[in-house]
Amino acid sequence: MNAEIVAIGSELLSPYRQDTNSLYLTERLNQLGVEVIFKTIVGDERAHLTSAARTALSRADIVIFMGGLGPTEDDLTREAVAEALGLELHRDDAILKQLEQRFAARGYKLTANNHKQADVLTGAVVLANLKGTAPGQWIAGQYEEREKLVLLLPGPPFELKAMFDEECVERLRAKLPVQHIAKCELRVAMLGESLVDSRIAPIYKRYSDVQTTILAGAGEIQLHLRCRGESLEAAQRRVDDLATKIEDELGDAVFSSNGESLEQIVSYLLQMRGMTLAVAESCTGGLLSERLTSIGGASRYFLGGAVVYSDELKTEMAGVPARLIEKHGAVSREVAIALAEGIRARAGSDLGVGITGIAGPSGGSEAKPVGLVFHALAHREGTDVIEKSFPGDRKRIRFFASQQALDMVRRQLM
Amino acid sequence: MNAEIVAIGSELLSPYRQDTNSLYLTERLNQLGVEVIFKTIVGDERAHLTSAARTALSRADIVIFMGGLGPTEDDLTREAVAEALGLELHRDDAILKQLEQRFAARGYKLTANNHKQADVLTGAVVLANLKGTAPGQWIAGQYEEREKLVLLLPGPPFELKAMFDEECVERLRAKLPVQHIAKCELRVAMLGESLVDSRIAPIYKRYSDVQTTILAGAGEIQLHLRCRGESLEAAQRRVDDLATKIEDELGDAVFSSNGESLEQIVSYLLQMRGMTLAVAESCTGGLLSERLTSIGGASRYFLGGAVVYSDELKTEMAGVPARLIEKHGAVSREVAIALAEGIRARAGSDLGVGITGIAGPSGGSEAKPVGLVFHALAHREGTDVIEKSFPGDRKRIRFFASQQALDMVRRQLM
Repeated sequence: MNAEIVAIGSELLSPYRQDTNSLYLTERLNQLGVEVIFKTIVGDERAHLTSAARTALSRADIVIFMGGLGPTEDDLTREAVAEALGLELHRDDAILKQLEQRFAARGYKLTANNHKQADVLTGAVVLANLKGTAPGQWIAGQYEEREKLVLLLPGPPFELKAMFDEECVERLRAKLPVQHIAKCELRVAMLGESLVDSRIAPIYKRYSDVQTTILAGAGEIQLHLRCRGESLEAAQRRVDDLATKIEDELGDAVFSSNGESLEQIVSYLLQMRGMTLAVAESCTGGLLSERLTSIGGASRYFLGGAVVYSDELKTEMAGVPARLIEKHGAVSREVAIALAEGIRARAGSDLGVGITGIAGPSGGSEAKPVGLVFHALAHREGTDVIEKSFPGDRKRIRFFASQQALDMVRRQLM
Repeated sequence: MNAEIVAIGSELLSPYRQDTNSLYLTERLNQLGVEVIFKTIVGDERAHLTSAARTALSRADIVIFMGGLGPTEDDLTREAVAEALGLELHRDDAILKQLEQRFAARGYKLTANNHKQADVLTGAVVLANLKGTAPGQWIAGQYEEREKLVLLLPGPPFELKAMFDEECVERLRAKLPVQHIAKCELRVAMLGESLVDSRIAPIYKRYSDVQTTILAGAGEIQLHLRCRGESLEAAQRRVDDLATKIEDELGDAVFSSNGESLEQIVSYLLQMRGMTLAVAESCTGGLLSERLTSIGGASRYFLGGAVVYSDELKTEMAGVPARLIEKHGAVSREVAIALAEGIRARAGSDLGVGITGIAGPSGGSEAKPVGLVFHALAHREGTDVIEKSFPGDRKRIRFFASQQALDMVRRQLM
């Protein structure tokens, strides 16, 4: 079975907003064995909406409409889908009553425009909205003499997610042939996309039954493996088999086989080893600290950090000798080491990280171009340094540098 | 005139990737007076692609196809659009020659699969690709006896943007009736969406010729105003008129009338006043420093910061007396003040910011629930504190807190 997702709302046709619900729905549908073959984005005009509904119904088995179920004049999804399917709308007393109660509980009276949220297509199953007012609808109908499954879901992401998970997944599963889909997500640090692909392509090409998707970001490659099989065990065996071979090839560059972020892995490892960390960062400007503390409970292992933009603060907060900066420059191997060792001593942590570099766009020179970054990690046995020249703009260079530093911590803890 | 954007590529129908080119194109098209009425996302299957092309041609004046112009078997946009329009493809010798030269310059030989990039629809104008290999195409043709403008553009964002700006904008302008569109983007800090809307709706509703779009984020509302007029001056007058009235109503909560971010505005103001800033942050974990240093040249006014997660580091790096933490708790008005004053003294900056709070998901109590944050700003005349209870998850609470702190700095500098 295949599906089309129709996202409704004029704001989704502006330069400022984008449909994101469809990513969530696609993941869920894929898990059920349903492929998404089209996505359409349409505004709040009745004629456009009806035309989009007809087009979708003519080419997909399952059509999911998102949005346009609210109480305003612009909310026309019910009317347009009813017209496209040739069905009537009737006002549902049970829904009206629920709406009245919901409003009364908050001290409001149900206004007339809200009544239309109780309009239901003939034969539709009403889907409860646990997080908002507009209920959804599930219609098993016909279009051009073929069976179609049509879902009307609300647009706000938290309403949509709750309704799909609670009200739709089991109903869909009952309608669909049993599917066994196994998945695995590997993540790889600090290797380039073409290098990774050239090394693993000979491997994954031998697994034609496993779909391999490669996504590349700054300092990170994600490998999504997916397989359908006669049983979940058989499918999982194929995915795990391929994942193991890829891990053997890429070695410890693979930091996660479960889709975790690098900061999450560093968090696990620090807690497992019972160790603490402090950081002194210059060009990353707080990004490394921000990533480390984005994980709840980070205070168990992250003591803190210094964002030492000025030379004076490098001395004041991380104890870097002023003459070292004078002699080698703020962006140097020596200052990176001094930052890492200084913050480790100052914070009394097991590990200390120092980062200094040139994120650009200005500040580069021939000897020290934009993108040059020194990363140092101080530990009990000494201090390691990695020098890199990262490509890209300020944002990308900063992310690369934070990723490199996290990867050094990870490797030290392994 | 209206347009449909068709984004092509099976990866855009996966849960991992999303079309973002269309936001850029929509902005450019709107500037030319063209409204986008549909967006379609379709995979690399020939039949689906042809069907999407036919549907788009049947309902929009301008149809822009993005992607599927490369050399691989999956790149079928040329073939599908030719089929939909009933046009032939012919191999263009001039393009072939350019491709050969391009490959030769890099020491490669042009392989056979690359030849298809030289296939051109009958009557098409070839659009040069300044950033990649696949050229684009511009076809002024007919579909169902109506004039249509069809553009084939490459999928990679930097290729698409360059080609659209350099090769398409002027050609489109020459085809379209002269349009005068004036714009303005106001940004508002730390007011809720419903409050802002209730205060400004009575104003913008009187300007029915100005389209007002309200976008809300954590601690920030963006107001996009747009107007078409007989002349640019007349349209700009209407937009400016409305913007002024909104600014009068919202007062200094409006921090930008040109779409700048809050950190950018703080950057301007600090440089204008010739003042410096240092920050000591706990629950925001480096986010405030990261936002301040995301602006190039931040070293001119941002001296640095301390990410003081542990109590010891609050004392060690920002000079917060240990007994103050013991007496009032790390999350308290008193510790926020001590952080701000301590980092100001330590860094020798004109302004010092202190943030302490509970970002969750754990760590809250009845007296100090998740979301509670104290923000302090130390300056020459004293120290101000703002206490807030922010809603949402860890990420949202942290962003709110960084926004509140930036807003305090902005107001101090005004």
